[in-house]
Amino acid sequence: MQKIKDYVSANTDRFLAELFELLRFPSVSADPKFKEDVVKTAAFVAQKLEEAGADKVEVCETAGYPIVYGEKLIDPNLPTVLVYGHYDVQPADPLELWDTPPFEPTVRDGKIYARGAADDKGQFYMHVKAFEYMMREQELPCNIKFMIEGEEEVGSSNLGTFVKENKERLSADVIVISDTAMISLEQPSIETGLRGLSYVEVEVTGPNRDLHSGVYGGAVANPATILSKMIASLHDENNHIAIPGFYDDVVELSDAERKALNEAPFDVEEYKADLGVNEIWGEAGYSSIERAGTRPTLEVNGIWGGYIGEGAKTVLPSKAFAKISMRLVPNQNSARITELFQSHFEGIAPKSVKVKVTPHHGGEPVVTPTDSIAYKAAEKALHETFGKMPIPTRGGGSIPIVALFEKELGIKTVLLGFGLDSDNLHSPNEKYGIDNYLKGIETIPLFHKYFTELSK
Amino acid sequence: MQKIKDYVSANTDRFLAELFELLRFPSVSADPKFKEDVVKTAAFVAQKLEEAGADKVEVCETAGYPIVYGEKLIDPNLPTVLVYGHYDVQPADPLELWDTPPFEPTVRDGKIYARGAADDKGQFYMHVKAFEYMMREQELPCNIKFMIEGEEEVGSSNLGTFVKENKERLSADVIVISDTAMISLEQPSIETGLRGLSYVEVEVTGPNRDLHSGVYGGAVANPATILSKMIASLHDENNHIAIPGFYDDVVELSDAERKALNEAPFDVEEYKADLGVNEIWGEAGYSSIERAGTRPTLEVNGIWGGYIGEGAKTVLPSKAFAKISMRLVPNQNSARITELFQSHFEGIAPKSVKVKVTPHHGGEPVVTPTDSIAYKAAEKALHETFGKMPIPTRGGGSIPIVALFEKELGIKTVLLGFGLDSDNLHSPNEKYGIDNYLKGIETIPLFHKYFTELSK
Repeated sequence: MQKIKDYVSANTDRFLAELFELLRFPSVSADPKFKEDVVKTAAFVAQKLEEAGADKVEVCETAGYPIVYGEKLIDPNLPTVLVYGHYDVQPADPLELWDTPPFEPTVRDGKIYARGAADDKGQFYMHVKAFEYMMREQELPCNIKFMIEGEEEVGSSNLGTFVKENKERLSADVIVISDTAMISLEQPSIETGLRGLSYVEVEVTGPNRDLHSGVYGGAVANPATILSKMIASLHDENNHIAIPGFYDDVVELSDAERKALNEAPFDVEEYKADLGVNEIWGEAGYSSIERAGTRPTLEVNGIWGGYIGEGAKTVLPSKAFAKISMRLVPNQNSARITELFQSHFEGIAPKSVKVKVTPHHGGEPVVTPTDSIAYKAAEKALHETFGKMPIPTRGGGSIPIVALFEKELGIKTVLLGFGLDSDNLHSPNEKYGIDNYLKGIETIPLFHKYFTELSK
Repeated sequence: MQKIKDYVSANTDRFLAELFELLRFPSVSADPKFKEDVVKTAAFVAQKLEEAGADKVEVCETAGYPIVYGEKLIDPNLPTVLVYGHYDVQPADPLELWDTPPFEPTVRDGKIYARGAADDKGQFYMHVKAFEYMMREQELPCNIKFMIEGEEEVGSSNLGTFVKENKERLSADVIVISDTAMISLEQPSIETGLRGLSYVEVEVTGPNRDLHSGVYGGAVANPATILSKMIASLHDENNHIAIPGFYDDVVELSDAERKALNEAPFDVEEYKADLGVNEIWGEAGYSSIERAGTRPTLEVNGIWGGYIGEGAKTVLPSKAFAKISMRLVPNQNSARITELFQSHFEGIAPKSVKVKVTPHHGGEPVVTPTDSIAYKAAEKALHETFGKMPIPTRGGGSIPIVALFEKELGIKTVLLGFGLDSDNLHSPNEKYGIDNYLKGIETIPLFHKYFTELSK
């Protein structure tokens, strides 16, 4: 549609400037020292929604960080689209690995480098700008609601309560979320599944104090060694997860589904070259695409214990720790898996140490329908913008809100993501392509248009 | 000997005040940020040696931290004792586990709490004060030399060169070192063996950047998981070290030696209670005393990788690290063991990661003679001060200088240590008993006296 293309090219500089302003807020929800910045970010988002033309804009307080709400209801007989996104970001460390400061957005080869560029500031803000266009050009075809939260990166702990308490206000016909990736600008795709998550922190305690490794070494259990042995035992020689019952509820894909998935373009040599590894890794009997998208996983996200400073210290540490997360697939249950992990991990601990397992947060896996009006509207919109039919893929990430919405509001979601797997989400040098950003803004009004038409 | 007893009681307050002044210097040799303090400590030690009556006091520059030298030569026909000690200390972290600041010495129930209180400031300073007494009271029976270094806690990297270049200046009949422990004030003992050390740092690299554990998890090797598996494999199910050739050069103790060692008072229940562990740990077939003193060990001194900050981050780390030290026994060789470790560790690395092993520092194991004049003099002196015959023990710690001296100068060492295993060396709340300090000062002149007499 030429009109939106023209609007975008006429406003490109401003669209980028506003996004940069948003990216400069270090809205790291995991780290208390950024509390003020996170709150400021919510206020900024509210202001931008208002400027774009939203009514009843509100920064809704929660037990944690606020949720920004806004809406434009034009006709109760028209369908309603609820846009979800999050304004919080992952921690930026290790800072020394960033080529440019994480909160000073910088453009290189057409990419915006900044923490949150793709996850999710750059992606939810496309909806704000697309909404601005639809308002200013009288192109809004349906009712629209926005809910932008600030705790997605720490498990959306307070969103559940908010949703339960605001069912009326949040009622809609579909939820659209841009927080996922497509295969490439040449090959658009739509994620139709998301993995769930169980995140735990483990603490292994040996002696009640750090000890001299010469005086006590060899005679007292070293918690770092024991933790290593325990972690080592969590995968068997085929890299299956060795927690009894872990796979019990996993729904295996049909051969047809596996075939379809593996038809997505994937070059293992490129994959290895991009990551700088000599060999790929994973569960025996599955392809890389399946391992990363359709199989449950267990990953050590962090491990520490003893002396980790400069030089050498001959200490036998009192404690060792690890942060461990498990990605879940339909129809595993987050709480159940956390329980299984906890009892297994406590069970394998030798008597020479004490073990504590603290659940962090979780989320349920989901599969989004490909036969819905919303999916077809997304297909049509992407086809028109990219000139190619999008293909369905399975995403390895987790957006717990999707399952929550289905459960609490009975509303299905369409994952209209414009990122790329190579965007370095959660990593140093996170980036988002300027083309992805602008094409996203062009695509969104088409989605609303086709969703409204197909709903008739 | 009443005279020294009287001198000590008359000067107790000053002896403590001077030690406290010495303990207030944060002379942490492992951490560059304390560089200035370490250098200041050397100057303080030199000044105190001079005040005590030493000649030719010199702060000898090295490629690293300086070595403080001083001497009193009264007669070439009399024997010469060389006193070795170190003025540097271990890092104090984790700071939050200290009940009182590590560099603000505090007395509780007759113990001096401070980093370095026992290791080694409190112990080498006894020799400075005993020397002061012998000078002021005309009780110095032989020639005496002092060499106090500042890099013991980081492997005495520059001492070797210094010793080679100063053989004449350092010539002596015996070396006496107070940097070890005795069983208790009721049961004096003399360490007759020290373990050697190989210290390495390992780095395991997976992908070339931190990755989103949802997008890549399950499809790329996680270096923290791989490092855990590699560390886990370094001990077998009997807690033997599983590095081929590791035990090849180990000299097994005779049944008689094992019997003698195990006669030292040891209460496993007290041991467990003191450390707060439910079960002891160690190599099958050996007692705790043997494990901690006579067997080689491999300990993880530190491990880290991925996100170790507040909250949760779903990252698949690019790198994971560990600091690993091995304690060696006669007649293992530090360089050889480091080589064995390196080739084994690189050998067991799966192709999906890259491994780097960096040797830190090492030291050779030693056994000190029990049939020497020096040992007999020490026995006699301790017997007189403590009213009980000291028994020989094997220490688990390492003082590389002992082997170095034997090799370079051909001089044997006697380990006249007054600490206790419970002094929390290298741990938070390091302490040294005031009685140990004062009784040490009383004992040292007796050692010089008997050593001189027995040498005739």
